[in-house]
Amino acid sequence: MVEHPFVWLNGALLPAAEARIDPADRGFTLADGLFETLRATQGAPRHVGLHLARLRHGAAQLGIPVAFTEATLLAACTELLAANALNEAVLRLTLTRGPGLRGLAPPPAVTPTLLITAAGFPPVPDTVTAIICRTTRRNEFSPLAAIKSLNYLDNIIARREAATRHAEDAILLNTQQNIAEATAANLFLLSNGTWRTPLIRDGALPGILRARLLAAGLVQEARITEADLFSADSICLGNTLSVRSVSSVDGVEININKVAANKLREVQQD
Amino acid sequence: MVEHPFVWLNGALLPAAEARIDPADRGFTLADGLFETLRATQGAPRHVGLHLARLRHGAAQLGIPVAFTEATLLAACTELLAANALNEAVLRLTLTRGPGLRGLAPPPAVTPTLLITAAGFPPVPDTVTAIICRTTRRNEFSPLAAIKSLNYLDNIIARREAATRHAEDAILLNTQQNIAEATAANLFLLSNGTWRTPLIRDGALPGILRARLLAAGLVQEARITEADLFSADSICLGNTLSVRSVSSVDGVEININKVAANKLREVQQD
Repeated sequence: MVEHPFVWLNGALLPAAEARIDPADRGFTLADGLFETLRATQGAPRHVGLHLARLRHGAAQLGIPVAFTEATLLAACTELLAANALNEAVLRLTLTRGPGLRGLAPPPAVTPTLLITAAGFPPVPDTVTAIICRTTRRNEFSPLAAIKSLNYLDNIIARREAATRHAEDAILLNTQQNIAEATAANLFLLSNGTWRTPLIRDGALPGILRARLLAAGLVQEARITEADLFSADSICLGNTLSVRSVSSVDGVEININKVAANKLREVQQD
Repeated sequence: MVEHPFVWLNGALLPAAEARIDPADRGFTLADGLFETLRATQGAPRHVGLHLARLRHGAAQLGIPVAFTEATLLAACTELLAANALNEAVLRLTLTRGPGLRGLAPPPAVTPTLLITAAGFPPVPDTVTAIICRTTRRNEFSPLAAIKSLNYLDNIIARREAATRHAEDAILLNTQQNIAEATAANLFLLSNGTWRTPLIRDGALPGILRARLLAAGLVQEARITEADLFSADSICLGNTLSVRSVSSVDGVEININKVAANKLREVQQD
């Protein structure tokens, strides 16, 4: 099941139907890997350097070698987009520790798997309804909270809870009940004219858009509580692909500030 | 990379080299799945009913359909063992939500992936050196703590820390700093003649051996702290495949009680 016919796997562009992940791949058996989601415009990926730096940082923490350069990655992405006749697109780069024998111990010689897939740019609504997730929490005690790893099932559980509660996304608390992030986006909260976003040590994933907004001086890091959500002047969920204004949390209407959201959106769309 | 030439994938026995996991499989992209590790003796899997019940319970929580019966599973395992000429063996059953499009939302029609692999029974040492993991914690607030899901990277991080600190396994604390389990085994602690094991609500995986030991009245559930480890009469790590006496924790020698460990081992080897 693929949206587009070609994928890039371990150095080769090939039809998706021919691309084979080894059943012994530790990405499949143990979620032993990482990924990045990149936005592409005009047939080329955006902010490749920032995504690669985050991937390298996470891979180093996990001890997964990264054997490719930014130039290689850029060429692979561009080739893949061209093969799929995509201009405005989303790329996903998945890096795993590769095949291994049974058990947790990594193989003595690691042959990482690198998969890149492409999809058309999805429709992005301006607003989103959210709940505060009650079925699971973000584990700020794990280094994985700061790594975009394949361990995504807590986020899927949260998204399933959102669907059950007739909302589109879920906001995750950490184990201390502070706000961490949404299921696939960082949270930005406007109050007194200032956008704030949860701390990395509170379980926020170091998102690329988040980093760019901080660098641009448009957002500040802060501890954010449940109560803050309901007294906010506005809330946005933002990632590489979109900035959406939260229109409700747990069914309670939240004010939408289009002008303030557009300030974040200008950076996201760059 | 496989130890044995045949695997069982989605209803068919086939050479491992021909078995293909779709790059869009959500088990690979999002760790959206579960697994079971079964012991096999004399060419047949043991305690299939207990493993299937746990798998069904986890799958139901995640909303992944389980379309096979115990009889089907038993037949598949037996056929796989025979094809690989294995008698004393380890089987791994992996169930994922199957292929999906980009993003967290599950596909409207789910086609789960079911993979069964077999390996020769590994050598099992009687003892193990352990550390208390300081780099990550078990998240007892997540339902995943009680599901044998594919999200195994925290355990890999803990095992890597153990290797760095010259130990063989790591004992994980939960976010409240109580003992949860080891990286791939439950913990059993002997004091005053009684074996105790951490509570499920403290982040212990509901292990099959653990359940069998509780049912046999050989073990009791209790909160266990770091201090308890160092005042224990003995400690064991146990799972479906083995019971090992912990010979040291953080370099501090722990007493080994072979007679008491053998009581647990008798159940494990049944």
